[in-house]
Amino acid sequence: MTQSWGYAAQQATTPLAPFSFSRRDPKEHDVAVQIEYCGVCHSDIHSTRNEWKNAIYPMIPGHEIIGRVTSVGSAVKKFKAGERVGVGVIVDSCRTCSSCQAGEEQYCEVGMTLTYGAQDKYGDLTQGGYSNNIVTDEHFVHRVSEKLDPAGVAPLLCAGITTYSPLRHWKVGPGKKVGVVGLGGLGHMALKFAHSFGAHVVQFTTSASKIADAKRLGADDVVISKDADAMKKEANSFDFIIDTVSAVHDLNEYLPLIKRDGVYCQVGLPEEPPTVHMGNLLFKRRNLSGSIIGGMAETQEMLDYCAEHNITSDVEVISIDKINEAFERVVKADVKYRFVIDMSTLKKA
Amino acid sequence: MTQSWGYAAQQATTPLAPFSFSRRDPKEHDVAVQIEYCGVCHSDIHSTRNEWKNAIYPMIPGHEIIGRVTSVGSAVKKFKAGERVGVGVIVDSCRTCSSCQAGEEQYCEVGMTLTYGAQDKYGDLTQGGYSNNIVTDEHFVHRVSEKLDPAGVAPLLCAGITTYSPLRHWKVGPGKKVGVVGLGGLGHMALKFAHSFGAHVVQFTTSASKIADAKRLGADDVVISKDADAMKKEANSFDFIIDTVSAVHDLNEYLPLIKRDGVYCQVGLPEEPPTVHMGNLLFKRRNLSGSIIGGMAETQEMLDYCAEHNITSDVEVISIDKINEAFERVVKADVKYRFVIDMSTLKKA
Repeated sequence: MTQSWGYAAQQATTPLAPFSFSRRDPKEHDVAVQIEYCGVCHSDIHSTRNEWKNAIYPMIPGHEIIGRVTSVGSAVKKFKAGERVGVGVIVDSCRTCSSCQAGEEQYCEVGMTLTYGAQDKYGDLTQGGYSNNIVTDEHFVHRVSEKLDPAGVAPLLCAGITTYSPLRHWKVGPGKKVGVVGLGGLGHMALKFAHSFGAHVVQFTTSASKIADAKRLGADDVVISKDADAMKKEANSFDFIIDTVSAVHDLNEYLPLIKRDGVYCQVGLPEEPPTVHMGNLLFKRRNLSGSIIGGMAETQEMLDYCAEHNITSDVEVISIDKINEAFERVVKADVKYRFVIDMSTLKKA
Repeated sequence: MTQSWGYAAQQATTPLAPFSFSRRDPKEHDVAVQIEYCGVCHSDIHSTRNEWKNAIYPMIPGHEIIGRVTSVGSAVKKFKAGERVGVGVIVDSCRTCSSCQAGEEQYCEVGMTLTYGAQDKYGDLTQGGYSNNIVTDEHFVHRVSEKLDPAGVAPLLCAGITTYSPLRHWKVGPGKKVGVVGLGGLGHMALKFAHSFGAHVVQFTTSASKIADAKRLGADDVVISKDADAMKKEANSFDFIIDTVSAVHDLNEYLPLIKRDGVYCQVGLPEEPPTVHMGNLLFKRRNLSGSIIGGMAETQEMLDYCAEHNITSDVEVISIDKINEAFERVVKADVKYRFVIDMSTLKKA
């Protein structure tokens, strides 16, 4: 076993605090990684606070992981020690079902293994990236270019792929009008990608204070969603809207903005199920869908695309001892646009 | 003007009763039709009772119309007197918007003109097929084969195309597993079409008494939707489910049955908007959609397909004086599977 340390929640109501634990020694297909940076996703908060009612403790969160390979198992072909790599939201899947075979491991029919808070096939409880290291099967490890700022790359492993994948799946590109609902960790990446793919991009926001930043990040237009007249002008005009908001909000304000046969894709998971006026779907054959992260090949494609086009997340880098404060600020949406922990600030527990 | 007669509602609370009125004389692109049969759609009841809050009276319902051409305007090329034809749910659209140009007149961006209860471009109130005749632009008139029973063809103009169109749009065919929710006027046509297209077809029903009939109509399997274990066995297995039920029901019982990237398509319009557990969409990238009728070219394609494959609706033919009784039976779902009025029973008012 490999002695390891990180910041863990011991139960739903306690703050994250130093914790030591062990990880498996690398098996033949495993890559051992020394973690340099880990992004702070809102999911980390939902999970550590057991807001999704499936938490297993102690829990070290973190699934936007950047680091360097320290050693590899005997059968590993993709990586060698010293290379910069990333690990995202999942660390295993069955590899044989139709979704896995299609490169859509995130929809594995047997069930994917989450990077933290899950039991893996060895019977171990997975622990995330608010820690000094991680040991992961190479299939779930990605090459990361040295060209990019590694702190800004970390959030690509969740916020990046979660927006990249549906924009690609629904073929967003030149000639398409695309809306982004919400301007946070996910929303700002959706803006960057949709703009980079050549679409006409419209940011929806409740706050006029975000207009300048939305335009800086790639929006061609910004619509204040509380302005009913402004919303009405956009009716039937969007090919695709990606909704990154997990707070409860009324989808029926946005669905009429979609063109015939267009798609409204939710990537945030609201705590309460929304009501859907079905006429908003029927009378223009609109589609309401949703998407989670992306497959392993697509995650690599996204990272390579980001290196080629110099795309990273806007981040605020913090030391690990500020993590509980950062959680509070994420809950208040007080971050532009992602906290990333500098894991060199983690001391051996 | 052409003196005409039919059965009309004078207000939301009165029964249908004999009524005389006039229709425009055929203009250069118009076809005048003597009506032989008219199907009774649940929409006719919603409309005459003003349950959709948009009724204009007096109202002659009926949009599943079969008849013979009596005369044509000077510019009409598609039809001549004596031919059997059909008129469905819409009688006009703008013809120039992107949807009309795409042959999707039912999604006209300007707004389609409904066969009854709408104001047409001449300023006239449109009146439906519970009448002796209709005058319609040839673009909205369809050829009907003499090979088929005309009473059984009438419901194809709404119940038929409403199910045919989404099954075609989402490419239902061999190798696909398709579910049909509800076994009424629409559901029984969805069964016939999905079976004819070569799909593996599963009927969902609340009532074991419908199993034999569902199998006769084309179901390979029948699942009792109240049986939670039976439903669970079907998880993640359907490429496509068409939901023909307009009564309020829980979509979240059916969405988990859809495969990754599959589609749940609603063609009935529930009075209350359902709640949708978004996780049911996100975690398998499922699509919730809806569809209304079909375009004019597709309606003709459907009628030709039915002639070639000997497909008609199962009908109970009634005389016009039984229409109010038939309405009550439709509300109670007491019909297998569509009432069709023999319009030869209509006397001049």
